[in-house]
Amino acid sequence: MTGPHDVDLLCIGSGPAGQRAAVQAAKLGRRVALVERRLALGGSCLTTGTIPSKTFREAVLHFASLRDHPERRQFAKVEYRPTPDQLLSRVERVMQEECNVIEDQLRRNDVAIYRGQASFVDPHRVVVDGPAGRREVSAEKILIAVGTRPADPPGIPADGEVILTSDDIGRLKRIPKTMVVVGAGVIGIEYASMFAAVGVEVIVVDRRERPLEFLDSEIVDELVHQMRRRKVTFRPSEGVDRLDVIEGPPKKVAVLLESGKRIVADMVLFSVGRVGGTDELGLDRAGLKADERGRLKVDAEFRTEVPHIYAAGDVIGYPSLAATSSEQGRLAACSALGAPAHSMAAHFPIGIYAIPEISMVGEPEHVLTERREPYEVGIARYREIARGHILGDGDGLLKLLFARKDHRLLGVHIIGTGATELLHIGQTVIGLGGGLDYFLRTVFNYPTLAECYKVAALNASNKLAA
Amino acid sequence: MTGPHDVDLLCIGSGPAGQRAAVQAAKLGRRVALVERRLALGGSCLTTGTIPSKTFREAVLHFASLRDHPERRQFAKVEYRPTPDQLLSRVERVMQEECNVIEDQLRRNDVAIYRGQASFVDPHRVVVDGPAGRREVSAEKILIAVGTRPADPPGIPADGEVILTSDDIGRLKRIPKTMVVVGAGVIGIEYASMFAAVGVEVIVVDRRERPLEFLDSEIVDELVHQMRRRKVTFRPSEGVDRLDVIEGPPKKVAVLLESGKRIVADMVLFSVGRVGGTDELGLDRAGLKADERGRLKVDAEFRTEVPHIYAAGDVIGYPSLAATSSEQGRLAACSALGAPAHSMAAHFPIGIYAIPEISMVGEPEHVLTERREPYEVGIARYREIARGHILGDGDGLLKLLFARKDHRLLGVHIIGTGATELLHIGQTVIGLGGGLDYFLRTVFNYPTLAECYKVAALNASNKLAA
Repeated sequence: MTGPHDVDLLCIGSGPAGQRAAVQAAKLGRRVALVERRLALGGSCLTTGTIPSKTFREAVLHFASLRDHPERRQFAKVEYRPTPDQLLSRVERVMQEECNVIEDQLRRNDVAIYRGQASFVDPHRVVVDGPAGRREVSAEKILIAVGTRPADPPGIPADGEVILTSDDIGRLKRIPKTMVVVGAGVIGIEYASMFAAVGVEVIVVDRRERPLEFLDSEIVDELVHQMRRRKVTFRPSEGVDRLDVIEGPPKKVAVLLESGKRIVADMVLFSVGRVGGTDELGLDRAGLKADERGRLKVDAEFRTEVPHIYAAGDVIGYPSLAATSSEQGRLAACSALGAPAHSMAAHFPIGIYAIPEISMVGEPEHVLTERREPYEVGIARYREIARGHILGDGDGLLKLLFARKDHRLLGVHIIGTGATELLHIGQTVIGLGGGLDYFLRTVFNYPTLAECYKVAALNASNKLAA
Repeated sequence: MTGPHDVDLLCIGSGPAGQRAAVQAAKLGRRVALVERRLALGGSCLTTGTIPSKTFREAVLHFASLRDHPERRQFAKVEYRPTPDQLLSRVERVMQEECNVIEDQLRRNDVAIYRGQASFVDPHRVVVDGPAGRREVSAEKILIAVGTRPADPPGIPADGEVILTSDDIGRLKRIPKTMVVVGAGVIGIEYASMFAAVGVEVIVVDRRERPLEFLDSEIVDELVHQMRRRKVTFRPSEGVDRLDVIEGPPKKVAVLLESGKRIVADMVLFSVGRVGGTDELGLDRAGLKADERGRLKVDAEFRTEVPHIYAAGDVIGYPSLAATSSEQGRLAACSALGAPAHSMAAHFPIGIYAIPEISMVGEPEHVLTERREPYEVGIARYREIARGHILGDGDGLLKLLFARKDHRLLGVHIIGTGATELLHIGQTVIGLGGGLDYFLRTVFNYPTLAECYKVAALNASNKLAA
């Protein structure tokens, strides 16, 4: 099928949403092009976000596991403090491997890739300004999947040395002794817990009373407890007034809080929200306008106010997770090209790669309570099962919420080793409409963390029978 | 309810089957006693089997991960070869923790525990001969859950020094340079792969043509390939004629094969089957007879030929896994006491804690082919997903088998990191009657190994559409 335009779908941005949309369009037999302004494909997921952060985390976990477990340490003499090079050494390689996977997939599906900054000429035409010159592309449908970047610190730019945003972690020059993390969202909490795990004294400052309020509050309590055990200090309900660089040597930074407190640290990581990467797109020429944080509003089919222009991924806001962005991209492409698509499963998982790891699907207790939906709780601690003893993680916690009425599974909340993997068992039960009964009659491999589902179900079963 | 007997149910053996049966009977409000001849509760699962072997394995994995990954090794200087103490240091502690969990659970449920060797007086009466003297117990129903022990090497007893059975691993005095493993069953393969992972040159001798024939053959091929990469030599279709101790020093062992070959090694691990621990039970006085390997035959409700005597766990044979034994114990107790019970899920998982880990549920390809049930295969390699790159395990493989007709999931076969945990997602889909469609519309956490399900489903989907 050929139309009056150069391509049927143009995807702006090659992160999870843009990538997946382009591949989906190609699989539908359409002509599709993708614009990426960076050298590497993959968006911030690959270059500054998920991939480097999770690779860094893996190194942190290995270091912490050696330091904290005498029976592992005995194989080797462990240094007191790792260097940034040690923690970052695999990042480049993993990024390259991922980039190859993405490029292979796009090429295999004959997706045209244009390098450069995209900007609208009119609602159907985009100019791409890149190393190979300027090129104009006209498209029947357009998907904006430009992602986000960290918001700037107030009044002073990040210098990557004492004032950082999450984009700077991959270029870290030293591991500080003390660090202030401003913003207790997912990114702030993930990095705060990682730095704490390698022995950095971390102070978390946030305007809100509690971090990660969308999680089940028992899980947040457990997270805060475990982070405090690693000497993290939480300063809730505090806003940052100003950051001052102290020239030194050694160079340091003073964080002045609105309450008048002054905290001096080796480094501050500023992670208060992210802004959509829409400012150079010339949205006005397409008839679009982003909100004050550079984000775009879409309807249930990921359509913007201009009906042939779609948006997906972080640029449309919550939950801003790679997995959901990818699925949004696929659905947006199907909708734009008039192809039938399974709608996205009602329950998508949330994975937070803090130390300890957290994952949830379905509803937390406070939501069910607000909704006046009676439920019963089943809990298993990793210390109750053999695998927890073998791993040496007794703190892990798995919590299941079942409907009082029909024993359907309503929510799964996990904190501890392997939480993001383990969650999918419960997600499958929710997705296929199962409940308590499934767990009671199922045999799990022994010894596995998955046995927590059985223990938690038995726990809930006793209460439901009462 | 009280009857003419001392207890309603007497369980002989405190391994997973006996334990679970006793707790189930107690929860049904019955009078129950449990006999254990060893000091520690838990059966061989806890004292010489699953728990010590999996704890040993965890130490092996940590050692191997340090040695094999330069980016982990950089935190520390790794020794070339671990000592047995290093590999076994946590075993005692994990065993103690597990033993406490079991004892707590039995006490909490008011299960009477008698220490000593049980033997039948008549079909309803058992004498327990232990440190506290002799005691006779009469029981309405009896469950024999005495487990198994390793078969003896031919013609020469295990000395725990150069001739070992799996029972001796927990008392290992040195890590050999070379080891012959006789018997490529689950236990033989698990230990062969663990010793290979710490640098031991291992030779596996087995009468059969291929190890673990009940697994999908592509998974076995992958296992053999990965074990060979660690310098394991396989000698299939070979029987052992004789073991000769070479007094040395150093003391060694010569393994003489029926084909005339002679293999000299530092140690031989003899793991050719296990025999039921029934020889001291006085089965004849109960009207029972074990087979030539000490095992008992039962019907679908775990009833022996004597209708009020049941048997469960390893003593009844395949699959002899802790998880299934536990479930058998529960079902036997329910049946014996006339309580309704969910029957055991038709598909139970198989977990093999080799290095790499293997797990399966449902059918392998060869069974579907024999049954003439058309299927399509979907495969994902860990190297295709981000989590595989981050973990540094590119070799892992997840394979899904879908029915051609209605796209139901028929089998899940995994080899690689986390296989025994990961399997349960597919098991849930099988258990709740789901199929291809579930995987296609589900969002998985990113980056997780669970994404392999999506990749494998897409792979199968393309073939099913063709």
